Formats: sequence, C-alpha cells, structure tokens
Amino acid sequence: MRFELTRDYLDALKGSVQQEDIKLIKELTQNLHPADIAEIFDELNVEEARYVYLHLNTDLASDLLVELEEDVRERFLSYLSGEEIAKSFIENMDSDDAADIIGELSEKKQDEVLSHIADIEQAGDIVDLLSYDEDTAGGLMAKELISVNENLNVTACLEEIRRQAEEVDEIFFVFVTDDDNMLSGTLTLKQMLLADGKTKVKNICDTDVISVKTDAESEEVAQVMEKYDLVALPVVDSIGRLKGRITIDDVVDVIKEEAEKDYQMISGISSDVEASDTVIQLTRARIPWLLIGLVGGIFGAMIIGVFEGALQTFPKIAFFIPLIAAMAGNVGIQSSSIVVQGLANNSLGFESTSQKLFKELSVALLNGVICSVLLFVFNLFYSDSYALTFTVSTALISVIIFASLFGTFVPLALNRMKIDPALATGPFITTTNDVIGMLIYFGIGKLFFGF
Amino acid sequence: MRFELTRDYLDALKGSVQQEDIKLIKELTQNLHPADIAEIFDELNVEEARYVYLHLNTDLASDLLVELEEDVRERFLSYLSGEEIAKSFIENMDSDDAADIIGELSEKKQDEVLSHIADIEQAGDIVDLLSYDEDTAGGLMAKELISVNENLNVTACLEEIRRQAEEVDEIFFVFVTDDDNMLSGTLTLKQMLLADGKTKVKNICDTDVISVKTDAESEEVAQVMEKYDLVALPVVDSIGRLKGRITIDDVVDVIKEEAEKDYQMISGISSDVEASDTVIQLTRARIPWLLIGLVGGIFGAMIIGVFEGALQTFPKIAFFIPLIAAMAGNVGIQSSSIVVQGLANNSLGFESTSQKLFKELSVALLNGVICSVLLFVFNLFYSDSYALTFTVSTALISVIIFASLFGTFVPLALNRMKIDPALATGPFITTTNDVIGMLIYFGIGKLFFGF
Repeated sequence: MRFELTRDYLDALKGSVQQEDIKLIKELTQNLHPADIAEIFDELNVEEARYVYLHLNTDLASDLLVELEEDVRERFLSYLSGEEIAKSFIENMDSDDAADIIGELSEKKQDEVLSHIADIEQAGDIVDLLSYDEDTAGGLMAKELISVNENLNVTACLEEIRRQAEEVDEIFFVFVTDDDNMLSGTLTLKQMLLADGKTKVKNICDTDVISVKTDAESEEVAQVMEKYDLVALPVVDSIGRLKGRITIDDVVDVIKEEAEKDYQMISGISSDVEASDTVIQLTRARIPWLLIGLVGGIFGAMIIGVFEGALQTFPKIAFFIPLIAAMAGNVGIQSSSIVVQGLANNSLGFESTSQKLFKELSVALLNGVICSVLLFVFNLFYSDSYALTFTVSTALISVIIFASLFGTFVPLALNRMKIDPALATGPFITTTNDVIGMLIYFGIGKLFFGF
Repeated sequence: MRFELTRDYLDALKGSVQQEDIKLIKELTQNLHPADIAEIFDELNVEEARYVYLHLNTDLASDLLVELEEDVRERFLSYLSGEEIAKSFIENMDSDDAADIIGELSEKKQDEVLSHIADIEQAGDIVDLLSYDEDTAGGLMAKELISVNENLNVTACLEEIRRQAEEVDEIFFVFVTDDDNMLSGTLTLKQMLLADGKTKVKNICDTDVISVKTDAESEEVAQVMEKYDLVALPVVDSIGRLKGRITIDDVVDVIKEEAEKDYQMISGISSDVEASDTVIQLTRARIPWLLIGLVGGIFGAMIIGVFEGALQTFPKIAFFIPLIAAMAGNVGIQSSSIVVQGLANNSLGFESTSQKLFKELSVALLNGVICSVLLFVFNLFYSDSYALTFTVSTALISVIIFASLFGTFVPLALNRMKIDPALATGPFITTTNDVIGMLIYFGIGKLFFGF
C-alpha cells in the first residue's frame, strides 16, 4: 500500500533516533519504497538521516540514493570513499542513474569511483554516458535495453530476451536491429505472444520506429515522447546505430523541471528554491529580481523628477501613476507569457513575426479601447479636470499597445538569438514597461496640460 | 522516421486540396502518425481538413480523432451521425479515449452513439467510465488491461495473456488478482520469462503493489506516478477490486495541463489560450485581469487623491510611487508563487502556517533591509529632502514585509478553503499589494513630512 508521510510518523521516527531505538527504526522503515524514504529524509537533519540510513534494509540503499534530492545526496556522498560509493551504490544502478550521480562528483572523485567498479562493461557504459551533455538525449538515456537481431525467429528471440533480461530491470519494448546494429524496429510483448514461434522477428516487428539522435535536446525528447505518447524512445547515433533508450519517467522529470523553471522565471525567482529551503537560500533567489525592480523604480523616479514643476501645478496627474504602471506591467506579462508558452509547446504556428505583432496589436487595441473607455467614463464623474481625463485614457491605450508589442517582440527576439525567451517574462518586462509607461504618461500629460 | 511540419509541406498540402489532387494528398499523408496529422489539421481550415480527412488511409481515422485538439474534434463530429461516430471511430478505440470523446458530446448524441456500439461489453465499459468525474482516477483510467489469477502457473498464465492480448493494444504490466478479483500483485515480462513454467504466479509476482482508488484526484494520480516512477498504475474500488489502469502518457497530459494552468494564472490569463487563437479569444482571456488591474488602479488613484494637498506642497513624494508599487507587486508574486508551487509539489514540509509566515518574515526583513539601505544611499545623493529619503526607505521595507506576508498567507488560506491557491498569484496579488502599498507609502510620508 501507499505510504503517507504524517507529522505523527515523523515524530515517532525522530523519537526513535533520539533514543537510538534500532528495533523501532527498522520497524518504521520496513517495506517502504525508496521514494518514501527519500521523502522522509527531506524532513530529517543530516545526523538523523545518517542514523536512520545506517539501519535501513541494505538492498534499499542504491535505489534510495537515486531518489534523494541533489543537495541531500551530495552531503551523504561526501562522507564516503570512492570505493564505498562504487561497491555499495553504483554497481547496482542503471547506467543512466549511475552516470547522473557520478557526474555530480568532483573530477577526482569521479575517477576514484570509476576505478573501483568491478564490471568493466558497466564502467565503460558510464564513461560513455558521461561524455554526453546532460541536457541531451545522450545525457538522458540508459544503456540497459533489450535488443534482438531482426533475423532471429520468435522462439530464438524469446531465448535471447531471457538471456538479456537478467541485466535489465524492466522490459517495455524490445528493440530490433540489423547485422550492423542499426535500429530497424521495435517489438512488443503482444506481437511476440501472438506470433508463431518460427516467424522471423523482422516480419512481425514495427519498422516505422520513432527515434532521436544522441545530441537531441532534452526539450525535443520530451516533445517527441509527449506527441507520440511513447513509453520508451530509442536513441541512435548520427548514422542510426542503436545507442540507448530513454523511458518516460525520466522525461516526466524534464517536463516538470522546464515548467517549474518558466514559472519561477515569471515570478521573479532566479534559482530553483522550495518553500522548505533556508532563509538565506530563499533570499538569494529573490534579491536579484528585486534589485532590478529597484533600479527600474529609480529610473521611474528620475523620469517623474523631470516633471516636478508640472506636479506642483497639476498634482492630480500623480493620482494615476500606479494605474498606468500596473497596467503596463500586467499587459506586458500577459503578452510575453503567451509567446513563451507558445515557444515551449511548439504551438506558435506559422505566422511570421510581423504577423504575430499585427495580431498582438489588434488584441491590444481591443483591450486598450475597452479599458480606456471605462476609465474615461469613470473620470467624467470623478475628475474635475478634462486635461486629466484625456491624459489618463490616452496614456492607458498607448501604454497597453506599447507593452503588448514589447512583450511579444522581446521573447521572440531572444528566442531567435538562442537565449531562453522566459528571461523576458516577469520582473524584467514589468520593470521596463513601468519605466517606459511613465515616459508615455508624462509625455501625453505634457500635451494635454501644456506644462 | 519522425515527421516535421514545415511551411513548404503545408503549402504543398493546401495546394493539393485546392486542386483536388487526391493522388498528391494520399502521397503527402502516407505513413504519417495520427499525431502528425492532428498537428497538420491545426493549421488547416475546416474545409481543407475535411477534404484531407476524406482521403486519408482509413485505419488512421479513429486514432486521429483522439489526437485532435478538442475544438477541432468538436467541429468534425458535428457533421456526423451517432451511428457513424460509433461505427467508424468508437469501436476501434480504447475505453478511456472513447469515454473522453463521448463525454464531450451532448447527452442526446451520447445516447445515440452508445446505442450503436455493437459490442455490448465495450458499451458497458464506456458507460461505467462515464460515471466517474473527469478529474479523478476513474475518469483517467482505461478498462483494457491484462489480469491473471494468482493461482495460475506461469505456462497457463502466458496462455491466458495470449488470449487477453487480442483485446489490448500494449502490455506493460500484467495485474494479478485473487479469486474475488481483488488486486494482489503485478507481474513483469521479466518475471515471467525468468521463471519456471510450473511456478505459481503468486510466488513470483510483486505483491507490494501501489494503486489508487477510483475517486483519487488526478493531481494525486500524477503525484503517485511521478514519485514512484510508474508506467502503469492499477485503479481499485473502495474494497480493493481491480477496476482499470492508468498509463503514464495520460498523466503526462495532466501534468502539462496543471503547469500551464498555473502559468496562465500567474500571468493574468484567465482561460486556456494559445498564440494561434483568434483575436477575440485572446482578448476575452486577457480582459478580466486587466479590468481587475483597472479597478485596483482606480482605488490607488482615490487613495493618492486624499493627499492632493500634500502633493502640491511636496511634489517629490510622487517620484517614488512607481518604485513602491512595483516592489510591492514583485515581492507579492515571489511569495505567492513559492507557496503555490510548494502546494502543487506537495513539498511545503511540515511547518505550521505561523512558522511559514515567520520564515517569510525573515526573508522579507533581509530583502527589505538590503533594498531599503541601497535606496537610502541613492537618495542621500539624489534627493535634497531628508523627509523624502526617510519616507521612501521606511515605506519600502514596510511594503516588502507586508507584501511578503500577504503573498504567503493568501494562497495558504485559499488552499485551506479548498479554493485553487493559484488564484492568489498574478494580477490579483499585484493589484492588492499596489493599493495597500500606496496607503503605506503616503501614511509613512504623513509621519515624516508632517502633512
């Protein structure tokens, strides 16, 4: 059954650690999935976690390591020698997990661990995987897979699968290759079970196989697996030889991470933090964007400062400063987020940049007219100055149009320059739009008030 | 090989439709995956799409329907009778897809389609699935699965799987049940291949099986499958009888949708739109939040209006209005997004609300002190009024503290009231913080300037 981490459970476990009640610790952690233990470890301090760890069922150890958060794992591994890491963890791991974990170590420790892996083939696989960029198909894939030659018959194929299965944890697909190890198809359990034992594999397998190259970016891998609803995706080299496979659970992590990164970007958080991180980590992640906002605010102050005389004569113009600034920011974020999401989903369609800007202009005009007219009507009652009424509504529509076009253009331009377009969301675009909004507002005020 | 949709391809296809060149259409769409055709259809108008559709390879039809965007599919199905829908599409579909598509139809059309499904068992499965809420495990699951009795031996089990396999597209897991159809384990291909034919299933299967109940929410399903890296998840009723299975590709869609919804919420977009939607759809999705911003801005104007006299005497106080408003907004978004993401990931930990607010207070104090001191130093040079210098820095730190606490508290409170906490992100929190920021700023100005 599924485990749910509760306050009570955690108190009981922490208590048993304090009292060094090994029997109770074993009892509490019995039958837990490594992912559950990783969740628990997130809530323990290092001392407690180490103590629990020492009394865990040993066959959980290597799986646990994979499940731990990166910072928790780093602290753990720093206590161990290269030999211990190799023997107690790496040797029981799949090549992709092993490569990920070894990749996090210092270069010196990497060599130490690699030199202590007894199985040369496994060490070789890991070294191969370490050579790929982390964010590519090569960096995501595992070497463990079942592949059979297309010329085998089904009976021989089952025999071959049985032989290879001892090395591989789970079998979702059997990959079919030709004599040169070129990927030529995939075979499902269903196809094997329903075929006659003498049929050749190449006559029953799917030859229309979707694959990616080792250097494909992880976003592309995620898009392909999502689009075609794949559970496993074969990875081939530039001439089509089968090199590894990626399973969907690894891609789910990529999808989550991408989404979280974009979300943090738009909310002005510059690194991957969680609510449970320390005050210092949280502050460090938040201060960069606040400083950008501060600088933007200072520019805004300087712009308004130019109009000090006008403010003294017509103080009412100050009333709508927050409205203009807020609308500029809101519209800019809306526009940029639509572009960023479209780029992420590959759903921007085939319009050219100028067509997109023209469409955005139409949306901005419509939104701008609606908001400006409403504000105009409000001011007819609220404001006793026609100059103010006209200034505010004209500035609002201008600002909405500017912020929309700017918010659309900047991420498209960044994307063309191969810079992450999500940079253009959040505080950056809000701040720029705020400053330019002030310029527009006071510029238009100058026209109507004649200051 | 993988298909990539290009401008050229699209032009060629549109041209062939215009010239009614059926041979070319068939050639262009040959060997395409239904997901590719769905992508193409997104770029065609209804007339073009219908024409292409009529000349597609027929066995693509039912798969294509599943892949289409909801609005495109709706237009398609409106042309067809219930009988046509049943015969040409539904009968070849998995029960979960069939239920999803039938669920989108009007109740009258639903009955019509159901009455024309020849296979009573299939119709029954669909009716069962339609009874579950769309956003629960029951609504996500499919009925097609392979299950074997735990008392069979491996040879009989393989025979049974072979028999059931004709009904099921892909086999990732075999579910094991007892005589009462209670889920008792899972069996992998590997376990079967490596076991002796006479071994009983119950002796080799995994009995430590993770499952969800039919009424589990889809977010919970996604969390479970992600946490335990599952490819397929069995769904059971309240007493543990096996009812269906959910595969990871359906859950990837849930994860994507959740992430997109939160992203749109924080960027002030109130419904699911894409850059390729029409001007009207885009405007409709964006105007609600702009109106909220407008109302907030008007409140802001009224608050500042109270201080018209002070503005006339000390116009400099207006300089920093955008800075205070922007910082209030930025800090509020940062705080609320950290909480919202923590709630979505179940990673908030076990601190109580007051502990979380205290931590947020520490972060706010740190950020506030840094920003206020920097602004103070700037104003020592820039501003010739000590009252302004003190007002701005004191207001800034106060606003940062208020906005942080407010941004943390509101989503936690909404979550406790079972309202989507993401509502508290984006323009709502920015707008409220803007308005209250103005109150704080002018309130503190009153103290230092003595107006």
